Amino acid sequence: MALLVQKYGGTSVGNPERIQNVARRVLATQREGNSVVVVVSAMSGVTDGLIKLAKEVSSAPTDREMDVLLSTGEQTTIALTAMAINSMGGKAVSLTGAQAGIITSGVHTKAKISNIAPRQIRKFLDEGNVCIVAGFQGQTDEGQITTLGRGGSDLTAIAIASALKADMCEIYTDVDGVYTCDPRVVPDARKIDVIAYDELLEMASSGSKVMQSRSVEFAKKFKVPFEVRSSFNNNRGTIVKEESIGLENVVVRGISLERKQAKVTITHVPDKPGTASRIFTALAKANVIIDVIVQNVSVSGTTDISFTMSSDELEKVGPVIDRISKEVEAGEVLKKGGIAKLSVVGIGMRSHSGVAATLFECLGNGGVNIQMISTSEIKIAVILDESQIDQAAKLAHAAFGLAEGK
Amino acid sequence: MALLVQKYGGTSVGNPERIQNVARRVLATQREGNSVVVVVSAMSGVTDGLIKLAKEVSSAPTDREMDVLLSTGEQTTIALTAMAINSMGGKAVSLTGAQAGIITSGVHTKAKISNIAPRQIRKFLDEGNVCIVAGFQGQTDEGQITTLGRGGSDLTAIAIASALKADMCEIYTDVDGVYTCDPRVVPDARKIDVIAYDELLEMASSGSKVMQSRSVEFAKKFKVPFEVRSSFNNNRGTIVKEESIGLENVVVRGISLERKQAKVTITHVPDKPGTASRIFTALAKANVIIDVIVQNVSVSGTTDISFTMSSDELEKVGPVIDRISKEVEAGEVLKKGGIAKLSVVGIGMRSHSGVAATLFECLGNGGVNIQMISTSEIKIAVILDESQIDQAAKLAHAAFGLAEGK
Repeated sequence: MALLVQKYGGTSVGNPERIQNVARRVLATQREGNSVVVVVSAMSGVTDGLIKLAKEVSSAPTDREMDVLLSTGEQTTIALTAMAINSMGGKAVSLTGAQAGIITSGVHTKAKISNIAPRQIRKFLDEGNVCIVAGFQGQTDEGQITTLGRGGSDLTAIAIASALKADMCEIYTDVDGVYTCDPRVVPDARKIDVIAYDELLEMASSGSKVMQSRSVEFAKKFKVPFEVRSSFNNNRGTIVKEESIGLENVVVRGISLERKQAKVTITHVPDKPGTASRIFTALAKANVIIDVIVQNVSVSGTTDISFTMSSDELEKVGPVIDRISKEVEAGEVLKKGGIAKLSVVGIGMRSHSGVAATLFECLGNGGVNIQMISTSEIKIAVILDESQIDQAAKLAHAAFGLAEGK
Repeated sequence: MALLVQKYGGTSVGNPERIQNVARRVLATQREGNSVVVVVSAMSGVTDGLIKLAKEVSSAPTDREMDVLLSTGEQTTIALTAMAINSMGGKAVSLTGAQAGIITSGVHTKAKISNIAPRQIRKFLDEGNVCIVAGFQGQTDEGQITTLGRGGSDLTAIAIASALKADMCEIYTDVDGVYTCDPRVVPDARKIDVIAYDELLEMASSGSKVMQSRSVEFAKKFKVPFEVRSSFNNNRGTIVKEESIGLENVVVRGISLERKQAKVTITHVPDKPGTASRIFTALAKANVIIDVIVQNVSVSGTTDISFTMSSDELEKVGPVIDRISKEVEAGEVLKKGGIAKLSVVGIGMRSHSGVAATLFECLGNGGVNIQMISTSEIKIAVILDESQIDQAAKLAHAAFGLAEGK
């Protein structure tokens, strides 16, 4: 008998009908001989409604009270889901984060899970129940209600799967899994059957947002395999797990795209120790989220530093960059929106050469100009004009034979 | 420095504006030098909305899950109320029933408070906070969420006042207090300043529903004085407390009215032991809520038994009564709707005679026919034709000089 943890997001439990749908799916899983723990989010729209209410009573609601307020969203879903299962002849009990033994740090609205004491979950499972656990929430050692911040319900599911040593953790969402590229752009994009944690992390940081990186990192750290799949059909999804020899045989797992980017180049930056640090410390203080950073070798005592960010971000922080540039006695600042990033990801890159060559060649042959290049151990990212990103995606997808799954 | 417990019902916290209103009132009370614990209900309409959701996922939601679901209503209000106070420069923390240390029996949807461990409340009060506690809910020794059933928030407030040995418990509602009679019927009805627990209980059981009897009985048992007052103005309300010599000097405290009643008379009931028991046991099994019961002395081996109930009730259970009547070999069954009950209440009755005489005389002089009479130690109730109830109320109110407060 396998022990499964299933997580259903806000869209999957978005109304009573969908909750009944989830209930049927959970019962079917149990009837196949599995023990099931279900983690649910707030019904879609509920959290936003609560935030709106909070803004109506206070312009700056305190974090502690936001947690008390927002945690009611998931609590509502667990009760409704348990009721639905019970009314279909199943046996289910709901558990709040606190009842499920999810102990967190005391940082309200973005608490970290510090421990899980799944005594109650185990007891209810042993009695033949499905346990329905509220995602996104926990309590501190002192009994204060906390929430885990964005992507928190995924985190709850993976943490519980880890604590219970579950056989699998299924993350149900509104997409079928992770694709080799965005199917709206590349029609023959293929669903990936198995992907390594690091690959998903690189895909996620490059625009393929099936899950928050935080949850994937947590799963990687505790070696919890999980499957991303749709709650609206019975298709198998994408299994995310540790690297293995089989996984390494595939050089490129997928391609992810990020649009609406902007690049900034600070020219003639004095090439002395501490200058780059001064620039990026100042940007961090201004809360600018920087993506790719490229600096080439110094020629004649100065260098050019380029970096990218979202276009929205650039509008906000243009003046900050100009000021910093003056402070470090650099030259001109060039700013340009309308660019995009294409990332080719695969852990097989480590042991295979020629990936960069294949990518640059296919883009060059297709007339796509590469403006910047950045690489990590398992990723090659290129910055392109946004108008060419779809074409570039199709070229790269074909060049790496991703449609055939080789 | 006094310690006050204030309870605000669903109408008083019915929208963000009203919650801010409550916040201002609480802060004003604190600034007068008081320590304040606030108990709040769910915003009006919220509980009904949750029940509707439950019915949409399950035709017969389990009680355990109803408690998990409904308790989110008060949890939402505590967070919003604390936020509102904090945003006005005050210091407030919210506490769920469980966090406030409210321990209950395990009977879901109508749990009883078995203990209060107000460690957290005391700690937060000592730090200068207003404590905002969720009414209507608690948890069992095993950590299961429970709710207290109808009137539960009043019960929470009174229980906390008792546990903290508070100086006063203020029950805020949408009425100004308890009146000598319904002001819509008797225009010169007067708000009662002080009333004894037993008097309020008799008023409540006779249609003056300012509070559930259960909460009044709890307050009486633990000798917790409380004040019923309006959250929409600053008028003093009605203080409810133990009997005292001062209270006993007033013979009649008030008059309460109950309309839409029906009476049933079973004639020629054989006068032998156990017959009345058989009749009322059968009625109880059929879930009939009986109000007044009158049986006169037996003449020639049989007696007539009369009892009243609400008209709605009679429609449902007419056939049951006919069957029972046959079973005990009684005679005819007479059923009549369109009657009402007028109750004159006052603990001073115990030591004064002539109350019945005054009541009967004033009604007789006014041409009001009395169909049934029932008395308790501190109440005289008469059953009248419903069409005469307003006139009867005015006559009795004048006869006992209630407008003058003598």
